[in-house]
Amino acid sequence: MTSKIRVGIVGYGNLGKGAVKAINETTDLELVAVFSRRDPETLDINVPGVKALHIDDAKNYQDDIDVMLLCGGSATDLPEQTPHFASMFNTVDSYDTHAKIPEFYQSVNEVALKSNKTAIISVGWDPGLFSINRVMAEAILPNGENYTFWGKGLSQGHSDAVRRVNGVKNGVQYTIPSEDAIEKVRSGQNPTLETAEKHRRVCYIVPEKGADTTVIENEIKTMPNYFADYNTEVNFITEEEFKRDHTKAPHGGFVIRGGNTGDNNKQIYEFSLKLDSNPEFTASVLVAYARAAYRLSKEKQFGAKTVYDVAPGYISPRSAEELRRDYL
Amino acid sequence: MTSKIRVGIVGYGNLGKGAVKAINETTDLELVAVFSRRDPETLDINVPGVKALHIDDAKNYQDDIDVMLLCGGSATDLPEQTPHFASMFNTVDSYDTHAKIPEFYQSVNEVALKSNKTAIISVGWDPGLFSINRVMAEAILPNGENYTFWGKGLSQGHSDAVRRVNGVKNGVQYTIPSEDAIEKVRSGQNPTLETAEKHRRVCYIVPEKGADTTVIENEIKTMPNYFADYNTEVNFITEEEFKRDHTKAPHGGFVIRGGNTGDNNKQIYEFSLKLDSNPEFTASVLVAYARAAYRLSKEKQFGAKTVYDVAPGYISPRSAEELRRDYL
Repeated sequence: MTSKIRVGIVGYGNLGKGAVKAINETTDLELVAVFSRRDPETLDINVPGVKALHIDDAKNYQDDIDVMLLCGGSATDLPEQTPHFASMFNTVDSYDTHAKIPEFYQSVNEVALKSNKTAIISVGWDPGLFSINRVMAEAILPNGENYTFWGKGLSQGHSDAVRRVNGVKNGVQYTIPSEDAIEKVRSGQNPTLETAEKHRRVCYIVPEKGADTTVIENEIKTMPNYFADYNTEVNFITEEEFKRDHTKAPHGGFVIRGGNTGDNNKQIYEFSLKLDSNPEFTASVLVAYARAAYRLSKEKQFGAKTVYDVAPGYISPRSAEELRRDYL
Repeated sequence: MTSKIRVGIVGYGNLGKGAVKAINETTDLELVAVFSRRDPETLDINVPGVKALHIDDAKNYQDDIDVMLLCGGSATDLPEQTPHFASMFNTVDSYDTHAKIPEFYQSVNEVALKSNKTAIISVGWDPGLFSINRVMAEAILPNGENYTFWGKGLSQGHSDAVRRVNGVKNGVQYTIPSEDAIEKVRSGQNPTLETAEKHRRVCYIVPEKGADTTVIENEIKTMPNYFADYNTEVNFITEEEFKRDHTKAPHGGFVIRGGNTGDNNKQIYEFSLKLDSNPEFTASVLVAYARAAYRLSKEKQFGAKTVYDVAPGYISPRSAEELRRDYL
């Protein structure tokens, strides 16, 4: 029997909690410890044998952990944490600030090349699985157009925005891809579509007692950047309805490429996800890529990597022989 | 400017013709020659500068061709041709006899390791893109089920079978995935489904003058292995309707995985293709993987490879920097 890949987790928010559950579903990975900035006593991990430790103790676990999953946020945690941990561990993170990926890559790559570690950055579904499909679809069908739709999904930023409106007690916003736009794309018409045409926004608002819902609705619908350019729907609900129907974090979306080959033959390539839990799915992708980080490091393929550098077989627990025989 | 990857094609049936068109759509690949067992004078290639040559002349082009696309059939051509050409060239083929892939892999791998060539086998969409998605979906969502649906697609084998029925002048058979079954799978129910429950079969038949259509319909619907176990529909049409509506080779299908994470959160992963021309799309996949064969050979990664061994970035014409900046 081969030994298990030993994994650590840094950060115990929704993503870190999802990673604990995802590792539990595998047979080839073993969770060693969860590291957090919080007092370890307050973490409620509930997996026998797994340590809860302060993040400053991680440096003492370099011989005990093969891959560290970095489950912090992209805004402030990862730009600092990924280079720091890549100096000691193979890492996988979900850095998702698209515009800053090149500089993030460079800062991680320099460290990981020096430390002889493999750091797979920007793993998840977008960036991640969606990125893979955008590139593969274009490589196969150069004469065509890529379309990415997001949703139905809870948007954290937009939900925060509606909750800042006067008279709103609680609220949530879902981004929903336009069925019309998807059908146009699926039919191979390759239409020109702005982001606002591809999505509509639906809000569920619990108003404060006595608040004027007409004023709230108007303020939301005219909010610049967030809602003004979109087809926006505002629904008012009770606190009970909110708790019953709107406490999960669903998400998903579509990558569709319509391409032409030969004498105008339409070829439609589509990848989609429909997720009850965005953080649990993203964590599951990170956990699968922990296998790749481990294998690449064994092959001495050090430095920063992205999903574009990882062959599909590297994320599977199965052997190459088994994949060829049973899955090809 | 970097020089183009020089490509050759062996076999000039529907797949080889599709490959000529697909190479034409690229800016980084250059078609050098098409090799065929037929008299080269009879090939109608129509691309300036591209040679039509007899297959026996290929051995003289080892210095002029970086990757050879093998566009023969899986039944008799490829088991002989891939090992033969992998002794002289990097190759990409579409070998699709699923049950015999392990022995095919082994015979190609032995030759390619000796000749220091890279041979990517079983490329296309199934095996190929569908295989990738079956494995990635399972790696990410270990607690779940994979489903593969084929169609709407013209099945060559079943079309041949209906044309052998007495009184049939011409005919074609489409395999159509059951919408009911797809909806069940998409809802995350993970139902148990036999192949026959997942698909229905629709035939369009041109009867010979005076033939008894009731007898034909009955003979088709009760044909063992091919139709007896399926929900089969038989339509009778005229020769004109046949020529107008049934001369393309559409195909496609779906790979769907319904998985659970954490506390019974449903996560649906779906990949699908809707293809006007099956051979042109398959050829487009082969052409994209020619880039990977070339790059892997430059890295001295010799031997037989499958799509599981090829990182997504290797099939794209774009640089790693560009992919990280614009596609991740």
